[in-house]
Amino acid sequence: MKSINTSKISGAQELLPETQAIFNNLKTNIANTYRLYGFQEIETPFIERTEILLAKAGGDTEKQIYKLVKTGDKSIESADQALRFDHTVPLARYVVEHESELIFPFKVSQLGTNFRGERAQKGRFREFCQCDIDIIGRNELPIAYDAEVIATLLATFKSFNIDTPVLARISNRKITTGLLEFLDQADKVSEIMNIIDHAEKVTPEQTKFSLEELGLDKNTVNIINSFIGLHGNRSSVIDELNNLEIDNATFRKGVDELDQILYLLESINLKEQIQADMKIVRGLDYYTGTVFEFILPDYPNIGSVAGGGRYENLTKHFSEQSFPGVGGSIGLTRLFYVLNEEKLLNPDVYDLLDYAIIPVSEHEFDEAISVATKLRDKGHSTTVVFTNKKFNDKMSYASKLAKNGVVIGEEEVKTKALKQKNFQTGETTELNIEVVSNPEDFWGNE
Amino acid sequence: MKSINTSKISGAQELLPETQAIFNNLKTNIANTYRLYGFQEIETPFIERTEILLAKAGGDTEKQIYKLVKTGDKSIESADQALRFDHTVPLARYVVEHESELIFPFKVSQLGTNFRGERAQKGRFREFCQCDIDIIGRNELPIAYDAEVIATLLATFKSFNIDTPVLARISNRKITTGLLEFLDQADKVSEIMNIIDHAEKVTPEQTKFSLEELGLDKNTVNIINSFIGLHGNRSSVIDELNNLEIDNATFRKGVDELDQILYLLESINLKEQIQADMKIVRGLDYYTGTVFEFILPDYPNIGSVAGGGRYENLTKHFSEQSFPGVGGSIGLTRLFYVLNEEKLLNPDVYDLLDYAIIPVSEHEFDEAISVATKLRDKGHSTTVVFTNKKFNDKMSYASKLAKNGVVIGEEEVKTKALKQKNFQTGETTELNIEVVSNPEDFWGNE
Repeated sequence: MKSINTSKISGAQELLPETQAIFNNLKTNIANTYRLYGFQEIETPFIERTEILLAKAGGDTEKQIYKLVKTGDKSIESADQALRFDHTVPLARYVVEHESELIFPFKVSQLGTNFRGERAQKGRFREFCQCDIDIIGRNELPIAYDAEVIATLLATFKSFNIDTPVLARISNRKITTGLLEFLDQADKVSEIMNIIDHAEKVTPEQTKFSLEELGLDKNTVNIINSFIGLHGNRSSVIDELNNLEIDNATFRKGVDELDQILYLLESINLKEQIQADMKIVRGLDYYTGTVFEFILPDYPNIGSVAGGGRYENLTKHFSEQSFPGVGGSIGLTRLFYVLNEEKLLNPDVYDLLDYAIIPVSEHEFDEAISVATKLRDKGHSTTVVFTNKKFNDKMSYASKLAKNGVVIGEEEVKTKALKQKNFQTGETTELNIEVVSNPEDFWGNE
Repeated sequence: MKSINTSKISGAQELLPETQAIFNNLKTNIANTYRLYGFQEIETPFIERTEILLAKAGGDTEKQIYKLVKTGDKSIESADQALRFDHTVPLARYVVEHESELIFPFKVSQLGTNFRGERAQKGRFREFCQCDIDIIGRNELPIAYDAEVIATLLATFKSFNIDTPVLARISNRKITTGLLEFLDQADKVSEIMNIIDHAEKVTPEQTKFSLEELGLDKNTVNIINSFIGLHGNRSSVIDELNNLEIDNATFRKGVDELDQILYLLESINLKEQIQADMKIVRGLDYYTGTVFEFILPDYPNIGSVAGGGRYENLTKHFSEQSFPGVGGSIGLTRLFYVLNEEKLLNPDVYDLLDYAIIPVSEHEFDEAISVATKLRDKGHSTTVVFTNKKFNDKMSYASKLAKNGVVIGEEEVKTKALKQKNFQTGETTELNIEVVSNPEDFWGNE
């Protein structure tokens, strides 16, 4: 009977109401936890000037930007507005624009949809909800804030109440960079970081081979290889790093920063949820210190479910002033998708309505809406079944939407004695609600 | 120091965190009230296939559609995706696509951003948040649902707690159409509706003149003119409509429907918040029965703050099946803008954080984050001031963000006796929180 293709576009999420409620519940948990940890929420526009987005974007990101044209616009080239592809670029613009009105360090959260014209494939999205936190300093930002970001994200995952542990894998790019400088590979930092970033997607032999291909000698390759194998709790990893005796200031600074973060996180009983791990470097050159990725260790195929790190200067493309920051992001649409695939979502958060009021006929419509209003005024979510259907059909409809049904017929209008039926148990109990009768029976007068 | 224009695009909203919190509070009230009244929330993608959007759009709307192009796309003409301009078209697609999985009548809410490339001017937005409710029937939908939609929107405005009354002005297009048929003007219904819709923006003489320009005789013009002057409560307006003795079935059906809606709304004590008003016709031909607009009577310049009505068939462009519906919408971005302009928003809904923890030096960072974690675990929103600033600067920062400050110095770490300072009153009281000390003082060992 359809006269047109009514499927959603590929690469977007579209859920039925029951599933949407579970998604929204996760998002509410994120917003509440971010707030609990002292972050202030902002929203920037979805549409930005193209020049703002292109100031940072590069390579694949630039190719994925959706430009906007209105009817009447002459050519694509003249399109000077586009959809944001992340929260970071708009945040940088926001901070520069509103600097004098903000209080630094600025602890900010952004929960909203971003857009990338990626090739559509399973589990990849073109429009997706990302939930970011960032702490932005003016000129300086103590390293302890990096621990705050990780603690906030761990608390957020705890609020999801999913039945599997979460692990934050933490490193510091200064450690990796310092080591490579010490090994006389300063000119190949980017390439080597890239190989380390992919190390878990290939065999150890392939990683070694890739490093050798860069022209590194066997000894250097072996050192890097054992370095990226380092992972564990604070005491073991910091000791092992110190034992490497790398005489490089950047390396030592990185180890010290990592040590401080791990110390703070362990001091608030997060020891089981964190791990130092030298394989974590994050793909983006953007990060300059702390880097972290969250995984669900029992579901290795899912990969990273959150990530972030420290950056030298949020606004370098927009201002000469320095705004160092640390941030983290949960890609909610993807997270929801994988949790759903793995059956890790709790369907119980989808709450049926508290009440459905079922008038037997039109004659009880006024009484029904009146009872509904009283229940709503008391905070009970309530619907009224006004449909012209057989009684059993109305009850069946009501039982799909609500926990309790209240039938209102002639008798109930007369006596004001209401009963509520619990649809799950079948039990019927008295409904104690003061029902004021209406002097006029409109529907009876038709 | 800026190297690029960092202002937001024109026609978009961008708020500081304190103001964003007030906006978000309104949105949360809307979501909660819609839920309380039994609506289920869905989200459709921002991006739709252009053919879906163009199936309904026409005239100005079509011109305002933002089409999307990716780098590499050859021409604007080939752009087959665009941003949605309202929630109705995506909802129609959604209902057709998911029909077999939905329960009808489907009470659905949508809160989200829509996009229109309008000419930028004060108070007009190109991206704006709209909060819609709709009740969709399959083949039939009793008129009582129209009352439910209006009652829900009135409850939503009540939840805003703004210090000015709200009035729902209600009519039914069948009344107007039936009258015009009776007056032998069936062929000019659209044009006359349009003149009625604009009647409040011009003088009565101009309205008469416009009607005469259509070729209507003086008597007809006078009848229409006194008709559109009818407004008031149920008993007066229904009586006056009946007294017109219009022998037309459409007219009588419209009066009957309006009567039923007003009756139900008056039966739940909304008499003061509603008014029958024959000037309400709504601009869109889309509506076929009930039409309504909400205003703030003390602020006539603001105009309509919500509106909606009954439509014959939501999905007529996409399916041969009939889905009659009734819906209403609050244009939140515009509403927020005008309430803000009129100083009707309550700034108190912006809550400071409960606590700011202020470690005197790095030596107390662990104790500070530990106290913060305990407060957060108890549900108190808390931040920690890790900055390397003078003590007074840290206190000043804390007092801008939080209601209470807790200073942690050497003494507090030793004695575990914590005090909280209420920044507003200056009062200092004991903070009763069990603080477990950490055996190791990392920061002291540096």
